Amino acid sequence: MAPIHYLPSLKHVAICGGTHGNEMSGIFLVKHWLRNPTELQRDTFHATPFLGNPRAVDKCVRYIDRDLNRTFSAEFLNSKDSDIESYEVQRTWEVNQIFGPKGSFQAYDFMFDLHNTTSNMGACLIVDSEHSLLPMHMCNYIQKHYTKSSCPIFLYQLPGEETYGISSVAKAALALELGPQPQGVLRADLLAQMQSIMACALDFTDLFNKGMLFPAFKIEAHKVAQRIDYPRYSDGEISAVVHPNLQDKDFLPLKPGDPIFQTVNGEPILYEGNDITYPAFINEAAYYEKKVAFVLMEKHTFSLPALQKKF
Amino acid sequence: MAPIHYLPSLKHVAICGGTHGNEMSGIFLVKHWLRNPTELQRDTFHATPFLGNPRAVDKCVRYIDRDLNRTFSAEFLNSKDSDIESYEVQRTWEVNQIFGPKGSFQAYDFMFDLHNTTSNMGACLIVDSEHSLLPMHMCNYIQKHYTKSSCPIFLYQLPGEETYGISSVAKAALALELGPQPQGVLRADLLAQMQSIMACALDFTDLFNKGMLFPAFKIEAHKVAQRIDYPRYSDGEISAVVHPNLQDKDFLPLKPGDPIFQTVNGEPILYEGNDITYPAFINEAAYYEKKVAFVLMEKHTFSLPALQKKF
Repeated sequence: MAPIHYLPSLKHVAICGGTHGNEMSGIFLVKHWLRNPTELQRDTFHATPFLGNPRAVDKCVRYIDRDLNRTFSAEFLNSKDSDIESYEVQRTWEVNQIFGPKGSFQAYDFMFDLHNTTSNMGACLIVDSEHSLLPMHMCNYIQKHYTKSSCPIFLYQLPGEETYGISSVAKAALALELGPQPQGVLRADLLAQMQSIMACALDFTDLFNKGMLFPAFKIEAHKVAQRIDYPRYSDGEISAVVHPNLQDKDFLPLKPGDPIFQTVNGEPILYEGNDITYPAFINEAAYYEKKVAFVLMEKHTFSLPALQKKF
Repeated sequence: MAPIHYLPSLKHVAICGGTHGNEMSGIFLVKHWLRNPTELQRDTFHATPFLGNPRAVDKCVRYIDRDLNRTFSAEFLNSKDSDIESYEVQRTWEVNQIFGPKGSFQAYDFMFDLHNTTSNMGACLIVDSEHSLLPMHMCNYIQKHYTKSSCPIFLYQLPGEETYGISSVAKAALALELGPQPQGVLRADLLAQMQSIMACALDFTDLFNKGMLFPAFKIEAHKVAQRIDYPRYSDGEISAVVHPNLQDKDFLPLKPGDPIFQTVNGEPILYEGNDITYPAFINEAAYYEKKVAFVLMEKHTFSLPALQKKF
């Protein structure tokens, strides 16, 4: 019989909404839970809701000075340089003090981070890598118990890359990335979906804390391979847009020769890679400034060992 | 035979994109036309493209200090008060100087204003009122010649209300409001739609200038009647979202007793009006701050007289 992995119970669990101040589902839910936290209570723990970037939430913008979900790296966490004391760097220190310190024994056991995208990503579950055993078991549980839509898994960490997101303050994390939803808009369907998936994830956490054995399993997940920018004029302006055949086709196969962009004259620009790939974050509003029209992913099947709480 | 109305030819025609700096279809098209204006040339005139709010376009935000499409009223046009010299008020004076002055003989003959909405408004044509004969003829021409989608007409001016939008600088105007498209996103399908409708509108203008007689016609159009806010807690925060049955149902009938909002617990809030009405701008991102969840419209059929250029 395959070995069981044992991990400590999850006592300190936080749920962050509004890491980006215009991604409304998580903001609305966190504000709701701050008024009435009963949905977050389970026998073995109470999850703590909080707004990641309250000033950006007030202004309904992604961020004030810089993207808060890119500042939880050593560079910003350890900096005392007043030059980089942007609002988000200060907020990084605050969040790290309350829920971290990142990488320490005192850090929160788990953090959920609630996002929306303008891309057609459905109810996407984001984990740093397939090596994060507990979040991968949580994804498997969500996929089996939340069956109203498929919940594809997106593994974002490139090999050797440092984590930099807000949830990396905790010992383990899961981000939800629900779309399509415009920035600044609350759709009832996505709100209910996020609420249900969070309830399911908290149920898993409670069962884990109570000692349930979660057996070994195989699971399909997508790993980021490459980021693709828009075609641009020499002055940096975008010269073509995402092709209508690619728009809204997140997680579907993209083949060599398929159209990926279209010029204003209707001419297609084709994908020149050699292999079938899987795009995500297609035409995400916030990624224009990051020079990302979409990311390309590889699809893998991973085998994960059984998991149980360490007694 | 019914009388023909005669109006002067349209020699000075402008096309504004980026009145709101995150509505991308018009911004992309205006930038394209500034590089290559051949699409805007007709026998009888050349249309002039320009960016309404270039600073907001650079930042990809709706506006810097205040909504530019609400500042073309006497209050701001005539003000010299330095207290209200926001960027948009200064820009209002600039635009009024170049394309106006509003209400004067020197003003541009026609202005197009290109918008996007997060609402499912399709290819909506916006005119101040049914009394604007030339824009109503243009709408009729577009509906007959651009047949890839229906182009519903939205009449925004309330009785006795002063015009305040950027296109009111010109003697006559038409705004395009294409959606759904998230703020900050360029969809190829809406871009092609806007490009085609503009080509059609410029063709109409050219035919009018060449003396074509446009016969009398009847046309259906929607007039704004009322604006509906979100339900709110006593502290002003939104307490319910647009009901999934209403979401994306712009221009479809809303009946007494139909659900319009849904609380976070899934409870519906019903429409309590007495008559069938027609909603638009349902769940538009930019209208949260204006306290508008949607607008209600009345549907009318108007009879318009024949039109020809005054020789």
